[in-house]
Order: sequence, then structure tokens, then C-alpha cells
Amino acid sequence: MSHPLITLTTDFGEQAPYAAAMKGVILSLNPEVRIVDLTHCIPPHDVRHAAFFLNACVPYFPPDTIHLVVVDPGVGTKRALLLVDCGAARLLVPDNGCWTLLGDKGLAPTVRRLEEQHFWRTPTSATFHGRDILAPVAARLSLGQLAETFGALTNNWVQLNFPAPQRASNGWTGEVLFADQFGNLITNIPSDVRHGTPDILRVGKRRLRKGFRSVRTYGDAEPGSVIILGSSTDLLEVAVVQGNAAVKFGAGIGSPVGVYWLKPKLCAAESHMHL
Amino acid sequence: MSHPLITLTTDFGEQAPYAAAMKGVILSLNPEVRIVDLTHCIPPHDVRHAAFFLNACVPYFPPDTIHLVVVDPGVGTKRALLLVDCGAARLLVPDNGCWTLLGDKGLAPTVRRLEEQHFWRTPTSATFHGRDILAPVAARLSLGQLAETFGALTNNWVQLNFPAPQRASNGWTGEVLFADQFGNLITNIPSDVRHGTPDILRVGKRRLRKGFRSVRTYGDAEPGSVIILGSSTDLLEVAVVQGNAAVKFGAGIGSPVGVYWLKPKLCAAESHMHL
Amino acid sequence: MSHPLITLTTDFGEQAPYAAAMKGVILSLNPEVRIVDLTHCIPPHDVRHAAFFLNACVPYFPPDTIHLVVVDPGVGTKRALLLVDCGAARLLVPDNGCWTLLGDKGLAPTVRRLEEQHFWRTPTSATFHGRDILAPVAARLSLGQLAETFGALTNNWVQLNFPAPQRASNGWTGEVLFADQFGNLITNIPSDVRHGTPDILRVGKRRLRKGFRSVRTYGDAEPGSVIILGSSTDLLEVAVVQGNAAVKFGAGIGSPVGVYWLKPKLCAAESHMHL
Repeated sequence: MSHPLITLTTDFGEQAPYAAAMKGVILSLNPEVRIVDLTHCIPPHDVRHAAFFLNACVPYFPPDTIHLVVVDPGVGTKRALLLVDCGAARLLVPDNGCWTLLGDKGLAPTVRRLEEQHFWRTPTSATFHGRDILAPVAARLSLGQLAETFGALTNNWVQLNFPAPQRASNGWTGEVLFADQFGNLITNIPSDVRHGTPDILRVGKRRLRKGFRSVRTYGDAEPGSVIILGSSTDLLEVAVVQGNAAVKFGAGIGSPVGVYWLKPKLCAAESHMHL
Repeated sequence: MSHPLITLTTDFGEQAPYAAAMKGVILSLNPEVRIVDLTHCIPPHDVRHAAFFLNACVPYFPPDTIHLVVVDPGVGTKRALLLVDCGAARLLVPDNGCWTLLGDKGLAPTVRRLEEQHFWRTPTSATFHGRDILAPVAARLSLGQLAETFGALTNNWVQLNFPAPQRASNGWTGEVLFADQFGNLITNIPSDVRHGTPDILRVGKRRLRKGFRSVRTYGDAEPGSVIILGSSTDLLEVAVVQGNAAVKFGAGIGSPVGVYWLKPKLCAAESHMHL
Repeated sequence: MSHPLITLTTDFGEQAPYAAAMKGVILSLNPEVRIVDLTHCIPPHDVRHAAFFLNACVPYFPPDTIHLVVVDPGVGTKRALLLVDCGAARLLVPDNGCWTLLGDKGLAPTVRRLEEQHFWRTPTSATFHGRDILAPVAARLSLGQLAETFGALTNNWVQLNFPAPQRASNGWTGEVLFADQFGNLITNIPSDVRHGTPDILRVGKRRLRKGFRSVRTYGDAEPGSVIILGSSTDLLEVAVVQGNAAVKFGAGIGSPVGVYWLKPKLCAAESHMHL
């Protein structure tokens, strides 16, 4: 049997000792567990970034993996800490909606509040629950301790409000969910709308009537071209071939994006009206 | 029995192949060992940052863990390389004081100089002892080879001089030990002095008479507030709620910090006079 | 027997979920495999940086390690994906030359094109072959599946053209291959040319006639000194002691470097004429 897996996702950065301290706590309780770093570079306190991040990687892991997430601007306040089982994954998270997108799928999640303090490190700091609460609970879960011993079920948790893309008479309006290392802008608009190439592309304050193309992949257009394509998460993505769309358009998370057709009746997105 | 653990802490950054080369050397000698990255982003040559970092995470690891540290501005000179056993941890370090804060605790450490060259890679470069000396020694230690085979005991090693906080008639003066990803300033002043809320807070060149609060955790004050609180390492911390104190005060490692009371006889830090 | 090793080298950065998604795919197929991060911070699309990086670390790993590399500006185009066995390592790479320097050594490499699509994730995205093709193939290789099942042999692959250093009548001219975290400039000139200390050092647009020294290691000269020394990869390196040569000279990858002697007949590099 393989050793259990605990993944770590934090906004601690690479210069602070906080993630390392959590690894020490986990390995002291369960020396056999395998720790997998997902990232420690979520932008500070950016719960929406964390939600996008987790949604794009957690579903690929074995379902018994324990995902520990510390993006926690509310640490030490009355915000709860949760143990979530959403079928495809187990998560230990602050109750701030960072797992919202994962919970949208399939079965209703089972959610518990971490309340049983005798499993926590003592004294329990008010500013580092990752080390003092989430790490020891993750280690004990990985040792096979039952979920119900950590706290009672709850039906009440924070959900992030991710704005849905809007269907207009002549196209779609949405926003940037994520900008990656390459400056590619991943939007909340479904990727298949691009198959009938739109006539107008809006990104941030800019509007392009010509000068962009709908392609299958980056290499399908000349360097420097503005392209729209389907992201690896099946969303509409705006990119600049071998360039940086985030810089070119001055756009980032939350920037408005739209695709429009001059003749509405040809709008390829028609089929989405019945989604 | 669990496989042994070797942790890595370096200032190599993420773009250079140096940390990866060390992992290869270790895994070639002991394919079973488990390597845990603590960080590769200690600021270049910043031994004091490394000392703070190690002190805040090494104590949480299982005591038989081997901690390999390469923050080594003196590489290739006559500075020694040390194998340290300080009871709670084994360290392989350049002799530059990076483990000073760990050595302050508990039992006197056992320190050896790495001298037995037949355990090193050959040829041994003058500029990369992490790969050529520390990595093979760490791997052999993890295979159970005895510490005494690597070199003789020494009683002589470099210690960093961390300035102690100063007790003044009306408060405490100290300095910033560490600024984290969030801009929180962790000082060398003990955290419990804040319980009798001070009247004056000095950070860098700024002095606040009002406009700051002593709180339990970040969420206890309004966004934008200047707060003082106890860090997760039990030191006085200056923060800006959902903001960045390092930026606000133009402060960083070494910046002066002070907390003062207008009426000295009410000074809550009185109890520290007998520390 | 030890569990197999898969290393990851990408240009995904630390904020995007792409590397984490690949880890999930690998661990879902082979929960026993051990994943080792080499880096996720190759500069975006910088295949030459990747080639230097891999050459400086891959040779230190056990030869049965599987090295998965995603620096892939041509993703989704007709560029092939390769499974390379170069004796000292197995690599899964886009066919863009990123493994060129490793292939230069020893035996002729065995190279296959990944063509057997039933081992890939479906649907297979056009923009993330790391997750959908390379990760599942790496996992299956680590489970012992034979290389020949993934695709046919090829004798045709992209090779990066790394310019050789040029021997001049009075010295050597080359260029910067890599600039590390410390601003050290590693060139393509062999390190032993420096033993007869050159009279003139050229870096980028600057030419130094005095004011630099040839040393064994960084600590052999005063802080602020310009030095030349042998890198840990046996190449000529230009550094500033406790400073940053890349900043001082405004130099980076590709910048010209030269070392020259005023009296050619004393040129210590003579011995290289017969290399």
C-alpha cells in the first residue's frame, strides 16, 4: 500500500519559514507521509486566486489525497477551519470560499468544522493556524484517524461569488479569472464560443475589431499576434504569441473581457442559451 | 521504519541548477532518502535571514532529520564546514553562524569539522561545496554512517551576534529580525510586552503616538490599521491589517523598533527585568 | 528496491496550477512514484536556459531517473514530443533542443517520438501536453512499461546551436551562457584558460585592463572586486565579490565575453589549440 499524500497550497512565499514549519509538524506526527508542494506563491491573501488554482489541479490527484490550504486573511478570528470531503478530494481549509469551485461539482460535499482542540498544537497561536491546527489534523487524518473525530458536520460555509459570464444579444461578456506566468489571460467564458470566430474582442479597456485570430494553439499564429483559444481548463483564453497579453492589455484578474459578433444571428454561442 | 529525511535550505534561487544538482548527488548515493525543500530563496548570502528561518522551522522536524544548509558567502575559503548535533536536530552547515539561534537552546551542541575528504566528490570544486561536500556527507549520514567518521570535534565556531532587545526606563528598544511575504515585521522584542498596550510605537524613522492597537490577531482591527501583536514565534510583530507594514514604514531587517509608555511605573514589561 | 523517481523542470512559475496538475496526473497513475522538483522557474519559453540548467544537474541523478521537461513554446503544433535515453538519463521533452547539451556526451542517444495516443489523457488539450501527454507517459514508464510501446525510434531531432568559444591570436572570445541568482556570469569559455591570468577582460560593452583578478574562489578577493574563476561546471565565470556582475556589467545570457593577453606567445590557452 502506498504512503498517504498531503499537498500544501499557501500564500507564504519562499522566503518565510512558515511552510517549512508546517512540514516539520506533519512529518513529526507521521514520518511516513509524503508531502507534495502545490505552491507557496498564491498572492498574499488572494482567496480567488487560490480557488482558481485548486480547481485546476486538485481534481487530478488520487481521491484520498489530503489537500491542506493556507490562504487565510482571517486567521485567528471567528472564521471556522473546515475539513471538506467533496468526493474527489479531502481538503483542510479556512472557511473563506477557497474551495468553492471544487464544491460545485458532483455530489454534495461533507463539511466539518474543526473543533476538537485536543488534536491541535498547544499553545495554539492566534496567527498561525496552519502550523498549529491544520498541520496536526492533516497528519492525523493521514494516519487513518476518522473525520468525525475532528468536529461536527455543518451545512453553513462561505462561498465565493464567481461572476458567471453574461450572454448578450451579440456575444458574451465575462472577466479574467487568472493570468499566468506567460501573461495568458484565462477568462470565465466557455471556450467553445470561439469556434465561430467573433468579430470583436474586448480586453480591459481595449476593443479589437481586426487583428486577432481564433486558433487551436499558440504556435498556430505568428509571434506577436493576439489570439483567442481554448485554455487547458476549457475556458476562453486571450494570449499574445510569444508575448504577454496581460502586459499588452494592462489586464489581470477581474478585467472585463468580451467577444461579439456583428451579425447576431450568426452567433456561434447560440447553443449556450439552453445550458 | 521510515526512510530518513534530508531537508535543503539554500540561497540558490529557483532559476539556477544548483539545488537540483545537490538533489541528484544525494539520491545517487541514497536512492531511498526523502528530500524536503525548506527553501531555496534565502536572499543571496544573507546568513542572518537563514538563522531566523532555521530557528522558526527546524525545531518542528523529527530530531533525526538531517538539515543541509547552503548560504555560504565564504565558499572555498578556509571557513570550515560543520556537522552539528544540537539534540533537536542534525545540521550540515558552513561555519558562518547560520545555526546560531538553534544552538542557544537546551544542551550544548556537538560540533565536528568536515575533514575526511574521501567522502567528498572529486574533483572537489572551490565554488560549490554544497554539491561536492555537504550533499555526499548528508547522504552518507542518512545511510547510517557515524558522525565521528566525517571529522573531529571542535569547540570553536562562528556565532552570529543577534542584538538583544534593550530595556529602557519607559519601554523596550529592539530591531526587525524578519519581514515576511505580507510585510509583517517580526522584531526581537518579546511578544508579551504588548499586553499593557504601549503609548508610543517606533518603527524605523516613524513614531506613532496614536493610531496603532495591540491585538490578538490580524482580523481584530480594521483593514489599514497599524497593529502590534505576538508573532507565531512569540516575538513582538508590527503589521498593517490587509496591508504591508514593511512598505508603510520603509522598514526591513535591522530597522529599529521601540515600544514606550508615557508613565514608566505602569510599564507592563516590568516583569522582564528579572529575565 | 527503491521507488522510481520522476523529476520536473518547467517554466510554469509558482503562481499557476500547471505543475501541480502534472503531479496529480502522475500520482494518480503511480501512487508510489517519488516526484522531485528541479525547478518551475525556467524563464518563460527560454529553451537555452533549460538546456544549460539540465546539463548542470541531470548528470548527478541516478541513471534510471525519468526527467520530465516542459519548456514548450511550440505546444500543440507539429513539433514532436520525445522520449530520450542518453545512457545517463531518461528524458521526456518537447523536440526543441532543450536536452542538446546532455546528448553531446558519451553514447549516441536513443530517441523515440511519442505517438501512441492511447497512453495519453483524453480529451488531449492542444495547450497543455505536459499534463495530457508527458505526465501519463512518465507515470507509465515509472511503472516499468517498455519505452518501445510509446512510439517509434527517430534519428531526426532539433539541436540547439550553442556557439563554441572562439580562439583568437591573443585570447578567447565567447559569451554568457547563464547568469545566476548572485549575478555570477557563467560563460562558454573553458575555465582553465584563466590560469595564465589574462591582461584584458571584456564583458558586454566593457573592457577592463586592470582591476580584475583571477582567483580560485569568491572569498579570495576583497568585496567589490571583479574576479574570474572556474565555475562549478568547469567554465570561465565572471563575478563581483559579494556583488552582482550581471548588474555591474549590464550583462546576461548571450552577452559577449573575452579574455586577452597582450603578449600572445605567453597565452596560457595555447594548450587548447589541439582540443
